[in-house]
Amino acid sequence: MATIKCIGVLTSGGDAPGMNAAIRSVTRTAIYHGIRVKGIYRGYKGLITGEIEDFETQHVSNIIQRGGTILKTARCPEFCTVEGRALAHETMRAHGIDALVVIGGDGSLSGAREFAEEYDIPIVGLPGTIDNDLYGTDLTIGYDTALNTIVSAVDKIRDTASSHERLFFVEVMGREAGFLALNGAIASGAEAAIIPEYAFEKDQLAETIENGFRKTKNSSIVLVSESESTGGAMKVAERVEKEYPQFDVRVVILGHIQRGGSPSAQDRILASRMGVAAIEALLEGQRNVMIGIVNDALVYVPFSKAIKKNKPIDEDLVDALRILSI
Amino acid sequence: MATIKCIGVLTSGGDAPGMNAAIRSVTRTAIYHGIRVKGIYRGYKGLITGEIEDFETQHVSNIIQRGGTILKTARCPEFCTVEGRALAHETMRAHGIDALVVIGGDGSLSGAREFAEEYDIPIVGLPGTIDNDLYGTDLTIGYDTALNTIVSAVDKIRDTASSHERLFFVEVMGREAGFLALNGAIASGAEAAIIPEYAFEKDQLAETIENGFRKTKNSSIVLVSESESTGGAMKVAERVEKEYPQFDVRVVILGHIQRGGSPSAQDRILASRMGVAAIEALLEGQRNVMIGIVNDALVYVPFSKAIKKNKPIDEDLVDALRILSI
Amino acid sequence: MATIKCIGVLTSGGDAPGMNAAIRSVTRTAIYHGIRVKGIYRGYKGLITGEIEDFETQHVSNIIQRGGTILKTARCPEFCTVEGRALAHETMRAHGIDALVVIGGDGSLSGAREFAEEYDIPIVGLPGTIDNDLYGTDLTIGYDTALNTIVSAVDKIRDTASSHERLFFVEVMGREAGFLALNGAIASGAEAAIIPEYAFEKDQLAETIENGFRKTKNSSIVLVSESESTGGAMKVAERVEKEYPQFDVRVVILGHIQRGGSPSAQDRILASRMGVAAIEALLEGQRNVMIGIVNDALVYVPFSKAIKKNKPIDEDLVDALRILSI
Amino acid sequence: MATIKCIGVLTSGGDAPGMNAAIRSVTRTAIYHGIRVKGIYRGYKGLITGEIEDFETQHVSNIIQRGGTILKTARCPEFCTVEGRALAHETMRAHGIDALVVIGGDGSLSGAREFAEEYDIPIVGLPGTIDNDLYGTDLTIGYDTALNTIVSAVDKIRDTASSHERLFFVEVMGREAGFLALNGAIASGAEAAIIPEYAFEKDQLAETIENGFRKTKNSSIVLVSESESTGGAMKVAERVEKEYPQFDVRVVILGHIQRGGSPSAQDRILASRMGVAAIEALLEGQRNVMIGIVNDALVYVPFSKAIKKNKPIDEDLVDALRILSI
Repeated sequence: MATIKCIGVLTSGGDAPGMNAAIRSVTRTAIYHGIRVKGIYRGYKGLITGEIEDFETQHVSNIIQRGGTILKTARCPEFCTVEGRALAHETMRAHGIDALVVIGGDGSLSGAREFAEEYDIPIVGLPGTIDNDLYGTDLTIGYDTALNTIVSAVDKIRDTASSHERLFFVEVMGREAGFLALNGAIASGAEAAIIPEYAFEKDQLAETIENGFRKTKNSSIVLVSESESTGGAMKVAERVEKEYPQFDVRVVILGHIQRGGSPSAQDRILASRMGVAAIEALLEGQRNVMIGIVNDALVYVPFSKAIKKNKPIDEDLVDALRILSI
Repeated sequence: MATIKCIGVLTSGGDAPGMNAAIRSVTRTAIYHGIRVKGIYRGYKGLITGEIEDFETQHVSNIIQRGGTILKTARCPEFCTVEGRALAHETMRAHGIDALVVIGGDGSLSGAREFAEEYDIPIVGLPGTIDNDLYGTDLTIGYDTALNTIVSAVDKIRDTASSHERLFFVEVMGREAGFLALNGAIASGAEAAIIPEYAFEKDQLAETIENGFRKTKNSSIVLVSESESTGGAMKVAERVEKEYPQFDVRVVILGHIQRGGSPSAQDRILASRMGVAAIEALLEGQRNVMIGIVNDALVYVPFSKAIKKNKPIDEDLVDALRILSI
Repeated sequence: MATIKCIGVLTSGGDAPGMNAAIRSVTRTAIYHGIRVKGIYRGYKGLITGEIEDFETQHVSNIIQRGGTILKTARCPEFCTVEGRALAHETMRAHGIDALVVIGGDGSLSGAREFAEEYDIPIVGLPGTIDNDLYGTDLTIGYDTALNTIVSAVDKIRDTASSHERLFFVEVMGREAGFLALNGAIASGAEAAIIPEYAFEKDQLAETIENGFRKTKNSSIVLVSESESTGGAMKVAERVEKEYPQFDVRVVILGHIQRGGSPSAQDRILASRMGVAAIEALLEGQRNVMIGIVNDALVYVPFSKAIKKNKPIDEDLVDALRILSI
Repeated sequence: MATIKCIGVLTSGGDAPGMNAAIRSVTRTAIYHGIRVKGIYRGYKGLITGEIEDFETQHVSNIIQRGGTILKTARCPEFCTVEGRALAHETMRAHGIDALVVIGGDGSLSGAREFAEEYDIPIVGLPGTIDNDLYGTDLTIGYDTALNTIVSAVDKIRDTASSHERLFFVEVMGREAGFLALNGAIASGAEAAIIPEYAFEKDQLAETIENGFRKTKNSSIVLVSESESTGGAMKVAERVEKEYPQFDVRVVILGHIQRGGSPSAQDRILASRMGVAAIEALLEGQRNVMIGIVNDALVYVPFSKAIKKNKPIDEDLVDALRILSI
């Protein structure tokens, strides 16, 4: 196994708060071990266009608290083609890059996997996505911050909600995973969460709401995962409005604020730990693995397994939500 | 003029952060002057149902930082009828309420005006609405907080925006006034603001955006007032998408988070000053006026004038936005 | 084992954000299971003075997002005496309270332990303290929020620090545990953390700082645990100023802001889960245990073991901090 | 009057949130008018060391939301000497800088005034300081943000305070001006503010506190201006502790967090407007003036008048604070 003298780092896919903390950690750990670092801009696109920059420790000063990613990301359909990846490989060689650290979600890691298999390049991945839907890791970088953003927004809606008798459906991200909606609902004291993992039984929902109204005469808030299965907050609202016209229904779609913002303490620490582990993994000769965290311990998850996969919902959480909204 | 021995205070209309600070200020100032206070719940509805409570200083402890309103609000169509207001008047007499302090927007103040004319009750109003669209006052309680909520949300969107090449249309509140959109755009560094006061010239918009893209290859953010004239963010986005398909367009509707949240320092101070002024106005024999703030001085604005009226947009601000987004 | 028909809940010791979420969870879970709830005010003092109130579900509405504790706490030296506890026991019987849920730190749980042994009362404890220094649980309610408060404050100091060439010593809480300082330092990108678990070697510190200065000409931030062993930020600053007069030294003592504030998503969820578990533990016949969380699973920790005990510092974190501040 | 082709911009003195927004506004407005811009680093020091950089519009992208100043500041005793200023003048000529925009407090503006008189250079100043103690302007850039930081911190202290019976003295910045303390006290619901403009009568204070305690049995919070006249929070606390040993006294020194943090909406808009006005003033041939804001209108204040001068405290605010803390 050849010695790694220079690594390239890139961020790909949707933004996740903490990506900058991860870039900082990867960069400084590499330099600490005598490895040079190249920052690759706009995800895999930078490997094709050659938008690459030498990174010293100062390049990553003062970015740990910033949302977004200084390396930016972009779609790169070219990287999905054989020719594109050939070009990327050429660029790597031209810049003397021996290994890659890829920070992103499952789409980015799939791309990494393919590239690694074609060219036998050591690549290590860090799970960067707010959805927390990657197999092999309890947490992904960005999840805790997104959860706090959701909670903060629902707190504001609650201020206005408890002054009126309304039913708010708040749509949160998560693609096909209900973690943000379920945990967001518990943390914000919402009445219920409509998540893809469960069928949406509107009678159950309406009953819960009516009980709430009878007792307190205040408003109710329900979190809804954006996803095909739930239909999203708009669809859910329409169905409830039609069946139960006595409710004054409002819809809030939180949208992209969930992907940004200064990362929480948890995300900064997770990103920092994972960045250090990524370089150490490369130095140990690990390749084609994603750094995961399981029971607070860092582990290596082979790319073949680090795919988007609905981790099972914690039934206790579902029960807790039901109990706490009485 | 009869001495005022007991006042009733209520909040009506849409929520505005700072309403609690106003309730606290009105309550404590009244008690300080030896006047008893009755908290009336759910706006004018409480005057009809009799949902009223004696308020001591402790009732308003620890509420200055809370969003929403502890007195809640509600729609009250009954108050728009002669019979309804007769009932309200009866309730006031039964509870020994000599005067009213009404905290709300123009709808609430219109109701107050009608009530005062019918029954010759001293009523003073405080401008509580995030829209800042009341004539006679430079600022309304809740405006500064809403502005900061918008800015904070757009900051988060910007994190994700500067990582991709996108065009975000962010819809903000304001009904038919563009203050939140225009000031929000300047404060958040957005490219432009689409406000009701100006016709929407899409060519001008697209040109601005294309210039931005050519130079920085980053995303652009445009704030849009919700209103019939602009059509709202969705409509604007559709028109741009159709005419300029090269833009990757996203829409964010901030919604009700703008009405909640812990009030800003400004709103707490404004609400506190106005509350003190309201009681002092009543003690001076003032009636049927709204407390306004003009050039940082508190003034009395007759109800007949304190209506929703588009205050002129500051042209300098419009120019500033254009210059600063080069 | 007699059936539990009525439980009392109290908060004791220093404040911790999330205590209200725990009170809400305990209350609603108990009511859900048909158990009545009495809220006991000012910690154990309420059991002596009889400051107790029947709690329905509405008593805990809208408190999940609030810092502090609606049940308040207070010192209660009387509870440390046999007579005091006898009085407390009498009060419990008079109010028909069959079991207690105590939310607090190790001092409070020690008191609970003593009380339980004397009178054979079922008592379950929840770990509520920002210090995270209780044996038997990975996390305590309030720790994550305090960490975020520290990080947020250091972010602000960093803004001003990177504009000047200064050396800031920021004192954070933790009593004799360095978790807040160490994790806070990693999360805020600080240069180093002075914690009780390690001897303070000032030469090592000065060398780290000088390297930092030579490279970037910016300021440095060092977090210091308040504790006898470190001496606190003031003492550390004095020693550095004397030995290395070339540094422009500033001290910031974060103080009590660390104990307040709206709880983070993590703390709200932890408090909610633990509250549910507390009632379920009582229903299972568990007594004299603290609910802990280990590897994300809820466990029962006997009171005899749930004492303040320096959990070992994670060496990897110490290494990470050193690497990341190059 | 020679045409201005190139301006230099610098930040000097203590940090103030909004400085970056001002740098952005000055830069883009200048470029908009065809004027080149040079960013001068570390205040006047950069004019002596020649640490200067060409600024394009992209140099100021994405900084409007950032605290601190990208141009940094530093002490520069050399600028206080004739030789130093001669060197600075040389540097300006060497870089082709025709005029200066100086963003800072009264110390910085004094330096500007001296420089302008010696060398007949057009200089315009922007009031950048959190203390709001500059004559000729109602507001300074950074004041509103600092106020909100104080309020946010006191909100957190209040959470813990209302759970115990304590007396908190919270020291805030302001040098010899009591604006931050007085407005901060009103906005945070504190009991009182000890400000330099008034003599500290401890009996009056203790009486207020005792009344508060008798009624609510909760804690009290008093804000104290750091300043020679008040003695600061530590001294005030000592005097109260000695005279009234029944109070459980705590001191919190907010310190440097008040100088940092993301600027508020108000500060961003103020900085933006002032930046535009600065360039327009130079184009109009104005020199040696500070841009001020009076009654929401931008004005020019001659340097000779724009000195630190205790603007009178608003008596109504003092009365309001007394009334509202009953």
